Amino acid sequence: MKQLDSIAKLINRFSKLPGVGAKTAQRYAYGVIGMSPEEAADFCDAIKEVKEKVRYCSVCGNFTDAEVCDICARRPGTVIIVVSYPKDVLAFEKAGGVSGVYHVLHGTISPLDGRGPNDIRIKELLSRIGGVEEVILATNPDVEGEATAMYIARLLKPLGVRTTRIAQGISMGSDIEYADEVTLMRALEGRVEI
Amino acid sequence: MKQLDSIAKLINRFSKLPGVGAKTAQRYAYGVIGMSPEEAADFCDAIKEVKEKVRYCSVCGNFTDAEVCDICARRPGTVIIVVSYPKDVLAFEKAGGVSGVYHVLHGTISPLDGRGPNDIRIKELLSRIGGVEEVILATNPDVEGEATAMYIARLLKPLGVRTTRIAQGISMGSDIEYADEVTLMRALEGRVEI
Repeated sequence: MKQLDSIAKLINRFSKLPGVGAKTAQRYAYGVIGMSPEEAADFCDAIKEVKEKVRYCSVCGNFTDAEVCDICARRPGTVIIVVSYPKDVLAFEKAGGVSGVYHVLHGTISPLDGRGPNDIRIKELLSRIGGVEEVILATNPDVEGEATAMYIARLLKPLGVRTTRIAQGISMGSDIEYADEVTLMRALEGRVEI
Repeated sequence: MKQLDSIAKLINRFSKLPGVGAKTAQRYAYGVIGMSPEEAADFCDAIKEVKEKVRYCSVCGNFTDAEVCDICARRPGTVIIVVSYPKDVLAFEKAGGVSGVYHVLHGTISPLDGRGPNDIRIKELLSRIGGVEEVILATNPDVEGEATAMYIARLLKPLGVRTTRIAQGISMGSDIEYADEVTLMRALEGRVEI
């Protein structure tokens, strides 16, 4: 006995979601079988609605349901925070206190994954720095995020744009005893006057 | 800035899948946004197809696309292997060498979860034991699986049906040094003549 074709197909489609392996996909497919017809139809409607309504802001690249997103429409664009993904915009907005706008690269430079500067929204960033006072590079503090930040900084410096990188150090609530060596060194190097 | 309504709705629907929390649901919703329109439509089609085609075998309760599943249709029903879920049928079939039929309870007896004998397919089992030579109880070797097996055994014994429970002991490839105490005791108690 093998899996029914329709179940195998749904398992295959679920495995296309990020981080979903075969066993998990099977669990989700069985979960769908256990849903009522209304719940399943509702699930499909939610998928369709997102594909119909969600677009990318023509200025910053974040998710929006309009041509230009709320943030780009309402805030002065003198300070741009550059991030890799829309979820990073959400994180900064939830933290609160941000008055700048964003630029979503939709990825990082990662030669090992075949992603070069032209595969992410770098030229779109260059086309919007006229009149900008500061570009804050807020990609992740990992190898690809650092490489991406450094690449962009090298492009912006000659253009005379003030370019900064978010601070690295010990995060709130963490323990120096358990911090990794690189983080500790960066925390020391980036020390500030009290 | 908060999540777009359509994205929040899709995140909510994904969280209804087994084991999916908020962060994972968000990751999946963003995954859907990143799909091409064709991939997303294909995903919906796979969900609809499963809801249209997958039914429960009227004899054993396993997934099937017909009134009676392949196994019930083709094998003699003299030995019934009782399992909790369709995925358990798949596991036994993949192991190979099974010539009996199955009975899927679709759950276990679990008072803490509000599941009693009437919430799983026990009366359907009783209605099909006429002429059956053996009922093998193959629910999971955990508290609920054991309780369910014992409950069913107490129902079947007075009816004169030979009732057996799958063996418990050390599984292939495991290490006695790391086995838990209950497993070791069961392995000793269930020892067989060489």
